Amino acid sequence: MAQPQLKRIARKEKLGRAGKKAAPKPVVRLTAHDLAARQREISVSEFFTKNRHLLGFDSPAKALLTTVKEAVDNALDACEEAGILPDLLIEIGEISETRYRVAVQDNGPGIVKAQIPKIFGQLLYGSKFHTLRQARGQQGIGISAAGMYGQLTTGKPIRIISKTGPTKPAHEFEIQIDTKRNQPVPVSDRELGDWHVVDPTTGEKSTVEHGTKVELEIEATYKKGRHSVDGYVEQTAIANPHAKVSYVAPDGERHEYARVAGELPKAPLEIKPHPHGIELGILLKMLHETKARNITSFLHAEFSRVSGPVAEEIVKSAGLPLSMSPPKAAREQAEALYNAIQAAKLMAPQSNVLSPIGDELLIEGLKKQVTADFYAATSRSPAVYRGNPFLIEAALAYGGGQLPADELVTMLRFANRVPLLYQQSACAITKSVVSNTWKNYGIQQARGALPTAPMVLMVHIASVWVPFTSESKEAVASYPEIVKEIKLALQDVGRKLGLYIRRGLREADAEKKASYIEKYIPHIGIALQEILGIDDKRKEKVCATLKDTLERSRKNE
Amino acid sequence: MAQPQLKRIARKEKLGRAGKKAAPKPVVRLTAHDLAARQREISVSEFFTKNRHLLGFDSPAKALLTTVKEAVDNALDACEEAGILPDLLIEIGEISETRYRVAVQDNGPGIVKAQIPKIFGQLLYGSKFHTLRQARGQQGIGISAAGMYGQLTTGKPIRIISKTGPTKPAHEFEIQIDTKRNQPVPVSDRELGDWHVVDPTTGEKSTVEHGTKVELEIEATYKKGRHSVDGYVEQTAIANPHAKVSYVAPDGERHEYARVAGELPKAPLEIKPHPHGIELGILLKMLHETKARNITSFLHAEFSRVSGPVAEEIVKSAGLPLSMSPPKAAREQAEALYNAIQAAKLMAPQSNVLSPIGDELLIEGLKKQVTADFYAATSRSPAVYRGNPFLIEAALAYGGGQLPADELVTMLRFANRVPLLYQQSACAITKSVVSNTWKNYGIQQARGALPTAPMVLMVHIASVWVPFTSESKEAVASYPEIVKEIKLALQDVGRKLGLYIRRGLREADAEKKASYIEKYIPHIGIALQEILGIDDKRKEKVCATLKDTLERSRKNE
Repeated sequence: MAQPQLKRIARKEKLGRAGKKAAPKPVVRLTAHDLAARQREISVSEFFTKNRHLLGFDSPAKALLTTVKEAVDNALDACEEAGILPDLLIEIGEISETRYRVAVQDNGPGIVKAQIPKIFGQLLYGSKFHTLRQARGQQGIGISAAGMYGQLTTGKPIRIISKTGPTKPAHEFEIQIDTKRNQPVPVSDRELGDWHVVDPTTGEKSTVEHGTKVELEIEATYKKGRHSVDGYVEQTAIANPHAKVSYVAPDGERHEYARVAGELPKAPLEIKPHPHGIELGILLKMLHETKARNITSFLHAEFSRVSGPVAEEIVKSAGLPLSMSPPKAAREQAEALYNAIQAAKLMAPQSNVLSPIGDELLIEGLKKQVTADFYAATSRSPAVYRGNPFLIEAALAYGGGQLPADELVTMLRFANRVPLLYQQSACAITKSVVSNTWKNYGIQQARGALPTAPMVLMVHIASVWVPFTSESKEAVASYPEIVKEIKLALQDVGRKLGLYIRRGLREADAEKKASYIEKYIPHIGIALQEILGIDDKRKEKVCATLKDTLERSRKNE
Repeated sequence: MAQPQLKRIARKEKLGRAGKKAAPKPVVRLTAHDLAARQREISVSEFFTKNRHLLGFDSPAKALLTTVKEAVDNALDACEEAGILPDLLIEIGEISETRYRVAVQDNGPGIVKAQIPKIFGQLLYGSKFHTLRQARGQQGIGISAAGMYGQLTTGKPIRIISKTGPTKPAHEFEIQIDTKRNQPVPVSDRELGDWHVVDPTTGEKSTVEHGTKVELEIEATYKKGRHSVDGYVEQTAIANPHAKVSYVAPDGERHEYARVAGELPKAPLEIKPHPHGIELGILLKMLHETKARNITSFLHAEFSRVSGPVAEEIVKSAGLPLSMSPPKAAREQAEALYNAIQAAKLMAPQSNVLSPIGDELLIEGLKKQVTADFYAATSRSPAVYRGNPFLIEAALAYGGGQLPADELVTMLRFANRVPLLYQQSACAITKSVVSNTWKNYGIQQARGALPTAPMVLMVHIASVWVPFTSESKEAVASYPEIVKEIKLALQDVGRKLGLYIRRGLREADAEKKASYIEKYIPHIGIALQEILGIDDKRKEKVCATLKDTLERSRKNE
């Protein structure tokens, strides 16, 4: 970035009478009381209705994608939490050019009746926010926001059918949101008993034993292509080889993504917070809310990586009595404890709680997306930001006739196996790619731009809590630790690529030299024939020998 | 972007038995009831504590800036709403290398006592959210979020002193947030009577007649430079020439930004929503909440640009009775009304409600920042996105020895006169600059990058509701209408720059030719002397004439 010498307009001298000079007499327009009368509470639903672009509903095309994405995220999470290999049916039907019906059905564990209204009709309600575990959903906003968007644009409620087991009755709900109070308003609620479904393509009937179906009518537009629902579903299938995904596009075309891996990925574990990742304010809050009898057991019970002896040591070095009751800690005492925690040598957060895709599946995934000459992948060890374990994986596909040579590289970004399709330039992944020096690997790159090469670059972040730049979860926030890890992953695959490219260049160079010499072999033959007076047969033999020698020297080069 | 031909991994044939193949027997880990037990409400304070990067608190350096910014935004808004020329004192004191005290004092109308706890101790509470009027604050989050961040990192409450007039007593509050309930908890609350302040530099005492002072202790780091508080205060002064700003940096250095304009900018007006900018769901909600007796008067009263006759016409074309009671409209009737509104020809939203900076002050502002060879500015007419009027202004400074020639241009972004210092690449302004074709104006630009030139580029968006990409208000969301207007503004200043650069190139070219010829004039003189046998005096005269002719021809070129 250019950093021009900015001219100071300030007078820097110490001013004797700053702030004392009377301001010109103003025309008072509003008094403090006028202003007070305007103050009002804002419900979180009202907030997000007005700011719906924060949730990914800023354009009709994106609204369609976001709606599908939120429903699919929930479906995959629910299946995995219940240990069920996911089997998804995504249907999008065109009602008009600007209105679509979206339905996502899963074979998950279902949702108990009493929870349905709040899960689908209240923003900031969910099971994942208060835990630290790798999952797609985390905020308790997504699907209810999609419902709110449907209500906002078409007036129609969100419709849910759910069944929790073969012997349990299915329930059907239609739910609206009272945005002023951020509360669900069930419009209808009936028991279905058995739940029969009809295959949208074949018309065949079957019975659902357990699972959930979400259906919405929204204002939207549908486009084909990589940034559309089509691309999202395809990339989702690649990052989730254990899922079977059937997708019926608005044009009626059916895409089947078969299950590639027969096993669920290693189940990610829930962890307690690491003491080095919490703030003083959180410590204070935890001290007041804990059920532990004394600070020592509090530290041991509420945090990870704090054994009994370590807890004692921390409390002692904070100068506090070991048996002190946690809620009785004053702010100063909590601060002493906080400082002792920061100073304590502790093991790094558990790293076995994350579920990476892995080198092999990364390359497999890329191979399914694009045919290239060279593939490389890396899956880094876990690192930590704000106490949260995370890990970065990167892969690239390079060369081959399919990829354009004079375009910027194509980026594929994933967070907890969810493809990120929008807000590319706001993402820590993109920023790391731009600030990496690709010229080191023989790749062209203009200052401040993505590299220019026939290349697809894929980066995945897995974490117990992915920090996104907005509620729409389209871009990863640039925490320094995350940027650093992404760069190391890029350098790893970059170096492999550099070796390949340099070998290619060397080979091309040798090839050029060789073909150059080859061209002259017949002339050498003729010259030798003239000088030595040998016959044609002898000449051919000499030429063949020369060619052979050349070949061998080339191989040994 | 490269758009490789992606390989389909889907089998596209119509599958006869899709979904019927039994999935492998899963190991059920969690049931619907287990999952239900984990569902919980999430308070908006808890949400933003965990997602504090959404509010601009992702790093200690940024936290300092965000805190100052939120306090200054509120101070300037309050002064302007009350018709008072703002007089601000910003003090930052270093407590330790990672802990700072921030205090911002204004001469605004003050805040009535009863409102103070909620304004500073509850997220989503404010006066500006439910209105459509150009202001810095809009969400009711900023200052209480700063307080929450202080509490989170230092455990200290936010401190407020406010006085609403010379005869009113000042009040001092210390407030914390109960994040679980998103409610203020006043820690202390006392009446001060008179409010005496001491100048931090001179030690002089004075009495405050009205105004508010906010003080926080936060975990932060301080750096100098354009992306720091220093740069923010400087740019704020430039975009607010009617404000007097005193800033005491952590190193004790005092910066005084004098008031340049003696008058407040034109007061922005509050408007009603434009009918073309609302969604069906909002219309439904308004129909149920209105006090109007019939739909005709409802349309006329609740929207801008709908006269009585126009309202009647809309209701008629929707096929509804003119006297229909608004809350009685069913969803289908509301939809008919909505469609009739969309089809109706209406005047564009009022454009006189915005308060631009203006061409002249834009260039003045740039001149104060940087010395350059060429300046250009444009202030466009208002346009509309989602029914909200907005306008774009752009200015540039080019050339001169101060700006580096081989770096990317420096961007200065403003929204409602507030400088935006972070998230540059996520911003619609940056995206518009990158996608503009700067080569047309003789400026270098790599694909996907900012142009490379000795140039500072300034863009300002003024709107009754600026859509930001996150709650931290650091980048403008890419609504198509906004991107289009920014591009038109850039093209406008770009063309002016192009003319200047081309003229410069032409002149440089002529200069080169002329100096080339000039060099040969003496030789021509000698040659003529030899050929014609003229004397030295005559030769000199011929040379002078030749030089003169050359000069004149150059000027006429």
